[in-house]
Amino acid sequence: MADPGGAGRRRVVLATRNAHKVRELARILADAGTGVTLAGLDEFPDAPEVPETGLTFADNSLLKARAIAAFTGLPAIADDSGLAVDALHGMPGIFSARWSGKHGDDQANLDLVLGQLADVTQRGAQFICVAALVDGDREQTVTGVLPGSLAREPRGKNGFGYDPIFVPDGEQRTTAELAPDEKDAISHRGRAFRALAPLLAPA
Amino acid sequence: MADPGGAGRRRVVLATRNAHKVRELARILADAGTGVTLAGLDEFPDAPEVPETGLTFADNSLLKARAIAAFTGLPAIADDSGLAVDALHGMPGIFSARWSGKHGDDQANLDLVLGQLADVTQRGAQFICVAALVDGDREQTVTGVLPGSLAREPRGKNGFGYDPIFVPDGEQRTTAELAPDEKDAISHRGRAFRALAPLLAPA
Repeated sequence: MADPGGAGRRRVVLATRNAHKVRELARILADAGTGVTLAGLDEFPDAPEVPETGLTFADNSLLKARAIAAFTGLPAIADDSGLAVDALHGMPGIFSARWSGKHGDDQANLDLVLGQLADVTQRGAQFICVAALVDGDREQTVTGVLPGSLAREPRGKNGFGYDPIFVPDGEQRTTAELAPDEKDAISHRGRAFRALAPLLAPA
Repeated sequence: MADPGGAGRRRVVLATRNAHKVRELARILADAGTGVTLAGLDEFPDAPEVPETGLTFADNSLLKARAIAAFTGLPAIADDSGLAVDALHGMPGIFSARWSGKHGDDQANLDLVLGQLADVTQRGAQFICVAALVDGDREQTVTGVLPGSLAREPRGKNGFGYDPIFVPDGEQRTTAELAPDEKDAISHRGRAFRALAPLLAPA
């Protein structure tokens, strides 16, 4: 069979080039039994780069989902996620992936947050994910939150981004010390994508 | 005369080792005719370093003024000032001097804000200063605000900190392109310190 998803499965495109996110969402959708086949942007090499010009997670996720739905003609999912640090008034927030000024430099971004908070004892933080679905005329967003606090030193090798310094409430380990399925079960992105899964049924 | 301030002048200590701030406040107090002689912390080499552990400008300015008043036995003024960027939820804020993780590295801090806002068209920002006076049992804080917006490239050689990228509302020039007396007339610190000057009369 050329269609690994099987006949009758619905194709939905995830509007990201972040391979971590594609794998994470694919695991979650498989577990949720949505009957959806996920396409990544690697199948659409000419898809436009969508500037994240919004000032909220919802703005940015909708910008991306709209642009990719328009380009591909498929229902499109996008997310915008980040770390919201209490002492930084919710920042890095939408700037999480470019906090150091270098987009996607996880180590520099993480080191910067640790440096900014070096003298700060209030370590509260949240991982936040807003997932957007654009399916024809239908637009929906859902939000997932993982509350926790920030460690003083990175620990763990799993995950990406700020995972090595984020300790979920009720955990001793950082999210980079959790196994992938443990992280999915509690993560902001897991929570948002699981909330989104029932919305993937045809309108 | 050994006392350049003349007999009967009241000595007040400014709780900062930042020479820029001492000169700026000395100019403002002289203009305000407060009859106060300003001592800098350079006259108190054993004064404690006061960790800025608060999470607001007011917290930090009071922490510093209390500690220096207690150490010197003199009325003490402290300020905590910073750049509050709208798109960064008011950050760098109290972290302005350590935004890059390197305390006092003006260039690195400024470059970081420009990098974080590289894709952001909403450039609104404010300079904010909270000045605290601790005089015996009396504690007071006053706030000065300078509204403006952020340039995309640094301009000007005056001032310090974020001055080269801050354009006050109604101005074309950055605060680093203003002459020192022009800056004092409108600056957040000028506004706060002028509001404080009348409070320097003996209790």
